[in-house]
Amino acid sequence: MHNSQRRDGSPSIVEVARAAGVSTATAGRVLGGYGQTSPASRTKVEEAAQRLGYRPNGLARSLIHGSTETVGVIVTDIGNSFFASAVRAVTDAVRAAGYEILLANTDSDPAAEQRALKVMWEKRVDGLVIAPQGPGSAERLRAMAEAGLPIVLLDRPLAALPQADQVTINNTACARSAVGHLTRLGHRRIAVVSEAAQELERLLDAPAGEGGDEPPSAARLVGYLAALRRAGLDPDPALVVHSPYDRHAAERTVRRLLRRNPDVTAVFCTDNVLSSGAVAALQDSGKSCPEEISLVGFDDQDWTTLVRPRLTVVRQPRRELGTAAGRQLIARLTDRGQARAGADAAELPGPGAEGTGAPEGGRPEPETATGERIVLKGRLVTRDSTGPAPGPRPASG
Amino acid sequence: MHNSQRRDGSPSIVEVARAAGVSTATAGRVLGGYGQTSPASRTKVEEAAQRLGYRPNGLARSLIHGSTETVGVIVTDIGNSFFASAVRAVTDAVRAAGYEILLANTDSDPAAEQRALKVMWEKRVDGLVIAPQGPGSAERLRAMAEAGLPIVLLDRPLAALPQADQVTINNTACARSAVGHLTRLGHRRIAVVSEAAQELERLLDAPAGEGGDEPPSAARLVGYLAALRRAGLDPDPALVVHSPYDRHAAERTVRRLLRRNPDVTAVFCTDNVLSSGAVAALQDSGKSCPEEISLVGFDDQDWTTLVRPRLTVVRQPRRELGTAAGRQLIARLTDRGQARAGADAAELPGPGAEGTGAPEGGRPEPETATGERIVLKGRLVTRDSTGPAPGPRPASG
Repeated sequence: MHNSQRRDGSPSIVEVARAAGVSTATAGRVLGGYGQTSPASRTKVEEAAQRLGYRPNGLARSLIHGSTETVGVIVTDIGNSFFASAVRAVTDAVRAAGYEILLANTDSDPAAEQRALKVMWEKRVDGLVIAPQGPGSAERLRAMAEAGLPIVLLDRPLAALPQADQVTINNTACARSAVGHLTRLGHRRIAVVSEAAQELERLLDAPAGEGGDEPPSAARLVGYLAALRRAGLDPDPALVVHSPYDRHAAERTVRRLLRRNPDVTAVFCTDNVLSSGAVAALQDSGKSCPEEISLVGFDDQDWTTLVRPRLTVVRQPRRELGTAAGRQLIARLTDRGQARAGADAAELPGPGAEGTGAPEGGRPEPETATGERIVLKGRLVTRDSTGPAPGPRPASG
Repeated sequence: MHNSQRRDGSPSIVEVARAAGVSTATAGRVLGGYGQTSPASRTKVEEAAQRLGYRPNGLARSLIHGSTETVGVIVTDIGNSFFASAVRAVTDAVRAAGYEILLANTDSDPAAEQRALKVMWEKRVDGLVIAPQGPGSAERLRAMAEAGLPIVLLDRPLAALPQADQVTINNTACARSAVGHLTRLGHRRIAVVSEAAQELERLLDAPAGEGGDEPPSAARLVGYLAALRRAGLDPDPALVVHSPYDRHAAERTVRRLLRRNPDVTAVFCTDNVLSSGAVAALQDSGKSCPEEISLVGFDDQDWTTLVRPRLTVVRQPRRELGTAAGRQLIARLTDRGQARAGADAAELPGPGAEGTGAPEGGRPEPETATGERIVLKGRLVTRDSTGPAPGPRPASG
């Protein structure tokens, strides 16, 4: 319905051949990129094609070859710096193999994810890199996975879709390390701001695992709980506060948390947006950081070294995550599972399987039925926003 | 070459019809979305299609309809927060009209831009939103524009490609406002950190225009010069310093600037990455801000209110820029120029033609040959990083 003018006006191979003074067959070979032609003919055809504005028909070629050389990338929000970095890296990795990306955002909305998947499917992407919206995503992805579409889960595992490859970071270990840093500094009243706070009861009751099958927020909450237990502390549900994924909401949440629990001496935030909200709340709280209250953020964004005090954070290998996901998909596409991207991932700075005896590492996997699990390592970067827990108030005041 | 297994294994309309117990013609009508069928047949066909994993062939449909319902989006770097926000908005705007986006990054490399354009062309995108790499982009885009491909220039104008639509902000007026704020505070030695510093001589010699045809960096430098002149100040080339688009390079540049020119009392940065480098340099300079030195940044990122002092910035309507670009492209696609997106843009918060008598506003434009020029307004947000110029040193020290 659109652009019939342009499409109708585009010259055919016959016209290019005529303008170049060669046979249609020769022009077809040059423009189609197959068979042999003399360098002179090639030059003549290419010049004529450019002069006439010939447009190679990638659609027809895709129908013939059965490949669109396009991969779908579905994330929560490309406007979020974490996904912006990761998607940039996915793009570079697949581009190096000749693939372009079709991009869609879901805003964590199941209906938007469903629409995006339908479009990607109809546009015949050769594979998919997706940060799934939630557990329900497994159902939405199953038919495509079973039809043989290579799928790489970015940042978020899906236990119910074992056939997909996953590239995640060791979220639980990262959170344990962050909160362990606080307990070693003597903190006892440590709050956590998490999108998964509502799942606290389930996570408390769950067997003490590594959280490897949980989405990032829940996996980080598991790490928080594990670090408290290791320090002999009982988790206090009042200090596990929920915030939606919004800086201003997080700011209000942290302000309320500190007002209601004046004995809190440390706060751990489980992602970048929540971290910025917490920094804003702390600045307005009148409490000095780190003398009265310590803060650990998640995801080392540019601003974390511009604020004062400089923010202690868990640094996520965002770009490496995207690179590993892109390479894993390409490995599936070029070798349908024979090429193992794990070897590629090992070349990246900082990745590797989690050295914690995580169940996923030890489970025997039938190669054909189960996807790869690539776990990259985040790490704690200690700066000035964390310090020793303040002494008892009566003594110091 | 890829995925022949999946593609070969995908069921045909004939198989779906057989499984649904209807004629092939009926199945074709339901799956192709044309003609009339009974609700009962429709349900049977849709269920069979889902059960068998039938994959609608979007490629074949695109060949028939002459539209891929895909638009190309080419930016410098989706990892940069400015483009991340703008692209998110482009995506939403075109998605609302049923279009998906193919994304590519150029890193300001002409060769990468050329490759991206070739791919977009071959994939038969219906239109293009592009932040052109530089003046050379006009040559690269000309053939496509002349073939009738709708092109919207995002953030960066191209004087040599008048047939393309442009969506930019009033960069010159924004910079004039930022530097005017500083001159009114009494500053006389005002430095500027700019990617376009090397073009200073050309811009000094140019007639005092509005910079509307210049790329953003140069347009902002024009605004800086205009504000100085308005305040009766002569530009000092030593205070116009160049930095590449990199925070750490900008930090080194500003550190050197302040060391060599201890009389500088204010710094204006012309984009977000340079601003973050300048903040870092100032923090390490030992000078107090704003008492000894004032700072104005460009682009209101999240961190600008987290640093202390809070940063005075020019706020760019990033999302609105992307929205206007996406809507303008859709207007071209759905009505081939009869629908004027200017009316849509007027609904956005804060946009509008520059009210400064800019030449582009007054030039009579033949509707068919010249693209629209949509100029959105940025504005100065004054915070704590700018203050009165310090008094003469001898008197105060």
